[in-house]
Amino acid sequence: MIVVMNASCSDIQIEQVFAFLHKHQLEGHLSRGIERTVIGVLGNTNGQRGTAGNIGEEIEGALQGLAGVEDVLRVSKPYKLASREFHPEDTVVEVPSACTDSGVVRIGAKEVVMMAGPCTVESEAQLMKTAQAVYEAGAVILRGGAFKPSTSPYGFRGMGEKGLKLLAKARAEFGMAIVTEVLTPADVALVSEYADILQIGTRNMQNYMLLDEVGRSARPIMLKRGMSATLEEWLLAAEYILTQGNPDVILCERGIRTFEKATRNTMDISAIPLVKKLSHLPIVADPSQGTGRRDIVDAMSLAAIASGADGLLIEVHPHPEEALKDGAQSLRIEQFQTLMPQASMVAQACNRQFVRPTHQAQPII
Amino acid sequence: MIVVMNASCSDIQIEQVFAFLHKHQLEGHLSRGIERTVIGVLGNTNGQRGTAGNIGEEIEGALQGLAGVEDVLRVSKPYKLASREFHPEDTVVEVPSACTDSGVVRIGAKEVVMMAGPCTVESEAQLMKTAQAVYEAGAVILRGGAFKPSTSPYGFRGMGEKGLKLLAKARAEFGMAIVTEVLTPADVALVSEYADILQIGTRNMQNYMLLDEVGRSARPIMLKRGMSATLEEWLLAAEYILTQGNPDVILCERGIRTFEKATRNTMDISAIPLVKKLSHLPIVADPSQGTGRRDIVDAMSLAAIASGADGLLIEVHPHPEEALKDGAQSLRIEQFQTLMPQASMVAQACNRQFVRPTHQAQPII
Amino acid sequence: MIVVMNASCSDIQIEQVFAFLHKHQLEGHLSRGIERTVIGVLGNTNGQRGTAGNIGEEIEGALQGLAGVEDVLRVSKPYKLASREFHPEDTVVEVPSACTDSGVVRIGAKEVVMMAGPCTVESEAQLMKTAQAVYEAGAVILRGGAFKPSTSPYGFRGMGEKGLKLLAKARAEFGMAIVTEVLTPADVALVSEYADILQIGTRNMQNYMLLDEVGRSARPIMLKRGMSATLEEWLLAAEYILTQGNPDVILCERGIRTFEKATRNTMDISAIPLVKKLSHLPIVADPSQGTGRRDIVDAMSLAAIASGADGLLIEVHPHPEEALKDGAQSLRIEQFQTLMPQASMVAQACNRQFVRPTHQAQPII
Amino acid sequence: MIVVMNASCSDIQIEQVFAFLHKHQLEGHLSRGIERTVIGVLGNTNGQRGTAGNIGEEIEGALQGLAGVEDVLRVSKPYKLASREFHPEDTVVEVPSACTDSGVVRIGAKEVVMMAGPCTVESEAQLMKTAQAVYEAGAVILRGGAFKPSTSPYGFRGMGEKGLKLLAKARAEFGMAIVTEVLTPADVALVSEYADILQIGTRNMQNYMLLDEVGRSARPIMLKRGMSATLEEWLLAAEYILTQGNPDVILCERGIRTFEKATRNTMDISAIPLVKKLSHLPIVADPSQGTGRRDIVDAMSLAAIASGADGLLIEVHPHPEEALKDGAQSLRIEQFQTLMPQASMVAQACNRQFVRPTHQAQPII
Repeated sequence: MIVVMNASCSDIQIEQVFAFLHKHQLEGHLSRGIERTVIGVLGNTNGQRGTAGNIGEEIEGALQGLAGVEDVLRVSKPYKLASREFHPEDTVVEVPSACTDSGVVRIGAKEVVMMAGPCTVESEAQLMKTAQAVYEAGAVILRGGAFKPSTSPYGFRGMGEKGLKLLAKARAEFGMAIVTEVLTPADVALVSEYADILQIGTRNMQNYMLLDEVGRSARPIMLKRGMSATLEEWLLAAEYILTQGNPDVILCERGIRTFEKATRNTMDISAIPLVKKLSHLPIVADPSQGTGRRDIVDAMSLAAIASGADGLLIEVHPHPEEALKDGAQSLRIEQFQTLMPQASMVAQACNRQFVRPTHQAQPII
Repeated sequence: MIVVMNASCSDIQIEQVFAFLHKHQLEGHLSRGIERTVIGVLGNTNGQRGTAGNIGEEIEGALQGLAGVEDVLRVSKPYKLASREFHPEDTVVEVPSACTDSGVVRIGAKEVVMMAGPCTVESEAQLMKTAQAVYEAGAVILRGGAFKPSTSPYGFRGMGEKGLKLLAKARAEFGMAIVTEVLTPADVALVSEYADILQIGTRNMQNYMLLDEVGRSARPIMLKRGMSATLEEWLLAAEYILTQGNPDVILCERGIRTFEKATRNTMDISAIPLVKKLSHLPIVADPSQGTGRRDIVDAMSLAAIASGADGLLIEVHPHPEEALKDGAQSLRIEQFQTLMPQASMVAQACNRQFVRPTHQAQPII
Repeated sequence: MIVVMNASCSDIQIEQVFAFLHKHQLEGHLSRGIERTVIGVLGNTNGQRGTAGNIGEEIEGALQGLAGVEDVLRVSKPYKLASREFHPEDTVVEVPSACTDSGVVRIGAKEVVMMAGPCTVESEAQLMKTAQAVYEAGAVILRGGAFKPSTSPYGFRGMGEKGLKLLAKARAEFGMAIVTEVLTPADVALVSEYADILQIGTRNMQNYMLLDEVGRSARPIMLKRGMSATLEEWLLAAEYILTQGNPDVILCERGIRTFEKATRNTMDISAIPLVKKLSHLPIVADPSQGTGRRDIVDAMSLAAIASGADGLLIEVHPHPEEALKDGAQSLRIEQFQTLMPQASMVAQACNRQFVRPTHQAQPII
Repeated sequence: MIVVMNASCSDIQIEQVFAFLHKHQLEGHLSRGIERTVIGVLGNTNGQRGTAGNIGEEIEGALQGLAGVEDVLRVSKPYKLASREFHPEDTVVEVPSACTDSGVVRIGAKEVVMMAGPCTVESEAQLMKTAQAVYEAGAVILRGGAFKPSTSPYGFRGMGEKGLKLLAKARAEFGMAIVTEVLTPADVALVSEYADILQIGTRNMQNYMLLDEVGRSARPIMLKRGMSATLEEWLLAAEYILTQGNPDVILCERGIRTFEKATRNTMDISAIPLVKKLSHLPIVADPSQGTGRRDIVDAMSLAAIASGADGLLIEVHPHPEEALKDGAQSLRIEQFQTLMPQASMVAQACNRQFVRPTHQAQPII
């Protein structure tokens, strides 16, 4: 941490900074420059869970509040367990799956993982038809919302536990693992009974009570990026889960909010290679939410793979025109069937390949 | 709602749109233009709570998914109870208060309300000292966080119920009503025991389970704007609370996320007059969070009042340099004492005045 | 400037940084911390006009390119002539004006200045009618576009020199000074013949050839903020003009681009007090462009004054429904007449007052 | 165009809208709905170049200014010559090139084009070394700035004509075509003497006088996206060039401005497939500017190709640590050599291939 003093700071103000640092067991290192006086801070300013207050973020805020201080610059990452420095090897999240030879799907390894399914579970017929189609095309994880956030209180909020039961039925039939959203701490136990991966949605990325709760769960967590979260905030949200003891966090880029109106969100593809540098956690991409437009989901899927994503999360609907939610961004089944081999080609060009479900006698391409 | 068809749409596609509308008890109205064919939709597309799915947002999404459809334009507001059209008179939220002559503080009426206090309750000494100072300077509501969201899991998350008890003690002493944050549905009952106004923080503006829960509470709710929420999304969040039967929602503008780095957030002052036009709900401003910089809190307070805000929410700390959170944006007590008469002057220039605590023998200015 | 090294940087990499600094007549100051190794840079890294390349911005970029370097942090402002540190007193720009007793209008002094007029000069009748109305209501500077940027090539691009002649005619009639936009270096001489203040529009804030050219002009310059410019970039654009020898730069906040769709731009009121701290240059506000909505121009005008703006720039049209440009954001004449005394009241509450045109026998309020 | 009236609009207000439309040779079509009254506008509201004012954008603004009007919705694109509807076939821009068998490089055809070189021409040695390296690795167009925009007036603004001469020398040596920036209308003739493609930089995307001027040039134009331009504004900027008679516009996505701080800009990869749908113009990607970080330029290059880009524009420097500009985002020569075959693999996976310079006896991969 570096404290930048005002050009006109007084000696007394400098002494006060040193006194503050001393009080918090930190050491200061004074440099008087022509332009500015700066004080380098030595010692552990990141703190550790369990110690009382006044650490990291707090130290920074407090220093900014001192007289004569112009700015406080952080020189190290505020997250630790999520950082590549702390954990140099890639984390590989293993999800049990009856539809692969190995009995697991590995996310974050050399293979790329296709997760697909409807935005929302609407009925048994809709779910089973979609599940069969994406399974046959090559998906190994089934997505589908049972508890859904809705911007409007008049909107559809999902089938609830009934939807979870249908997902479990689809798993029994096709062997695909299930990823589905959990909205509130009180539902974590229930959703965990049915889901193989718990999804934290974009609106809940900073719902810290929920992060704490899923951090205590035995299930892997798919953590979607908040719609206006910086990479640092996103990795700090992952850190919440990791500090509770759950090491299996999968990040999911799903678009950020910008001024552009032609797409629902602006998909930040650069987050994919950058997260790979900053963190050891796997990262997947959701081009359906990320764009809100079915007509570019294919191109953005290929881009995500080419940039290094460990998997895709794609909305598919047998009849998008009848979808209860997000019809505009759901692929038709035929579109998904066309996408799968294209995505596979790009993965191979990048020296990776998609996890194959066991049913497939022939290679996808 | 208006459906805009592709320039090259077919007659069959147009028929399909009509069939879809018919299926949902809606009527279509065809206009073939030189540039585009559009279909006006007649009937209630907003739906009402309780009716099953496929309404409003869903109808829109589904129409966007139909073949030949280029765009779907909404022509009416998606919120109803929160809208000025539905409820033309200003809502005035009454909060019991022992420090005014009338025994209540009215938010949304002609008077302007000053709410101030520390960002976070840190200790009895810190809270009581701040409470006394802001009370003597003219605040009628005391703010202070007991349950605090922290971007980092290593940060201070508040004193919890202990902090609530201290707030209650300050209320007993000075008569000011208490506003404090609640983070999760399970805590609503506990926080309601102590607080006069429940605050929903920016990160929870779209935590719908929490909105539902406080919608069933008997306490007024202060709903902060999500850091990247549009006005429409914000009013829809208010609609969640209103539909549960709680009419007492106070909106709070606290800055939005933009590319500018010189301030922590960009305070959207235009939201204040615009919300006044779109809605009947009172709106207050938080220039401390809104800017993150103590040195412009005064100017932004005056701007908020001048633009029509019904109140201010200001962070004050006896020793900002020792604050456990947000020291950089907390006013010193002397600064708050200076601000109060300035704000009062601007309010008067706008034909309003601040609610006076009873203790004040002389006028503030 | 501070160079932050990677956690795993080598001694050789550190030596290379020192060698680089040495080569550029700069001194390094090594601090090895527990978390990071940082190198403080001493010496003038901002450079001075005329010295060849490799200074300031370039030094920073080059350092970021060195092996082992994680980040480069600037600790001083990149602008100098525009900074408050360099020039502690407020700059007051004097504009000749036949409609004040003193014969000048002073922008940046204690008085607040009202500039108003049509977005675009459309005809003699429209201009003269608007000019008379705003003059009688209290404006001392007349705004009006003769050369207009248009997002579409099919849009109206202004009357050109004919429009300038009409502006001059209005000046002759009412004595108000004229502010009007110049779009390209080749037009600076022509526009200067007619205008008292040259306006640089938002799209040209980083048109450096144009900034150079107006920097050599004898006219004061009103520099609008780029629609996605940071305060630092804006002040650097002002620095371009100042370095060419023109000291009379007036900044104008006119809204920035954000995700919010309810307003055309998001007016960044906080830029007003912040610019006042960072710079000595006067700053005015344009709530017409800043919001794009006539119905909140009044509230935002008051907010701008309350936050410390030195003036307002307001679009007024006798018949907004017939305006060739921006009708939605132009005030009707009656609305302007209503605004003027309100704005005056708020200015007085802030211990300032509007410059009075000589014609006014009675005080505005 | 559709006019949405206020819920409470009067019959007189509706008549006024019809009168306005009639005055402008447009026809109205009234629909009274339960929620809203809307008026569909028939007739050509886009106008055509040459007709006087009051068209398209102006009509829209004027309608928004009418009493009783709540909103005006456009249902057709405001650009015409740039639109896919008007010109269904892909535009292929041909650039003369001595380093391909055919003597031209085709941009927008099935082949993908690699353009590379230094950000800025700094010296003969630097340019020739970079040119040789990128040529040998497979680039067919050489990029390099001679006239450079600099955020700071103290920054390096390029070598000017001297730089252009060096570019011409490199072309003579290696046969690669030259793309370089032009900053102001007065320089278009000069730069055209040397350059094969004129680049319009991000800060000048809405410098309409410059767009007009290059629209009259015989050279192809590479039009970079403004840093906060919507796709619509970008295509309207292209329309400026096209309306002047120059059909050869190449769009270049180079990142947009968002709240994220980890990258210099957020590269909007989704713009690539979306522009392909909206327009017939070719589009290339600049991952150097788009990210500002050398360490993810490779991943973003592959993503751009996978999403359908017609080419890449990449900054390469023999010694990025000595670069006068943008060292942090320039690839080292070895990195570029590594990227080329990777990019080629991804292109092949997408059924495309890079244009091959003639010198290459063997296939790149």
